[in-house]
Amino acid sequence: MFQLRQLLPSDYPAVISVLNLWWGGRHMTDMLPKLFFHHFHNTSLIMEKEGELVAFLVGFISPACSEEAYIHFVGVHPDYRRQGLAGHLYQRFFDIVSKQGCRTVRCLTSPSNRRSIQFHSRLGFQLIPSRTLLEGIPIHKDYDGPGRDRVLFVKEMD
Amino acid sequence: MFQLRQLLPSDYPAVISVLNLWWGGRHMTDMLPKLFFHHFHNTSLIMEKEGELVAFLVGFISPACSEEAYIHFVGVHPDYRRQGLAGHLYQRFFDIVSKQGCRTVRCLTSPSNRRSIQFHSRLGFQLIPSRTLLEGIPIHKDYDGPGRDRVLFVKEMD
Repeated sequence: MFQLRQLLPSDYPAVISVLNLWWGGRHMTDMLPKLFFHHFHNTSLIMEKEGELVAFLVGFISPACSEEAYIHFVGVHPDYRRQGLAGHLYQRFFDIVSKQGCRTVRCLTSPSNRRSIQFHSRLGFQLIPSRTLLEGIPIHKDYDGPGRDRVLFVKEMD
Repeated sequence: MFQLRQLLPSDYPAVISVLNLWWGGRHMTDMLPKLFFHHFHNTSLIMEKEGELVAFLVGFISPACSEEAYIHFVGVHPDYRRQGLAGHLYQRFFDIVSKQGCRTVRCLTSPSNRRSIQFHSRLGFQLIPSRTLLEGIPIHKDYDGPGRDRVLFVKEMD
């Protein structure tokens, strides 16, 4: 029913055209310039149903640390949420990067995104500790610049 | 007089704090999340004068194509422009990535940035052809998403 394949640079217009829509109108396209498709497509994934884009994951193996992978962006079509598609993409990414020698996967989210924090915890990600806590969640203040606090995740793979 | 060294993830707050200022107040910080420092610091550079940040370059070797490198972001302190510092950073980057097997370096700019186009041409970059020309310059329409036209550069190294 769902087809999972490696992302291609030519998928860029299709993904970018739905991005803000899938995020409920938020302006997200700045976070995903084409360089991510051009240079990281070998570890990134597209999920389709009858040729229609339903989910994607953009991630890469760190050039600075070859045992570490990073998941930058994951999106699921609003009509296909709560079916485990994102979890499936993550698991496939873990397979791809662990076969290439990665031991660790990192990603991050906004402190307000409690659903994302629960999702990553279920997948076995640990929250990286911080002295700053918000309702019990460790927050890394100004991580992505002034006012851009983040929750940081890390998962050690078996 | 100027000290050139590898960029470190811990340089992030210093760079991000001057970014919008160096770009004349434009909002640039979205283009440089910390992931670029965390994962690409091994091929990125900082230039300092008596401990003060005067220039930086963020670039990486493509995980998808190990013979190709990409320069994402280069900044020079307004008081230190027109002294060849950016060119010096590019040359050092060429040295670093060619020693690691790269044959090609890519980067891009906005069509309105004529100074950047001249700078890259002087450094030996070719403009990637396009059917769309603007005052003789090949423009890649919507390259980074709708309305985000780009001029694309490529340099083949000896």
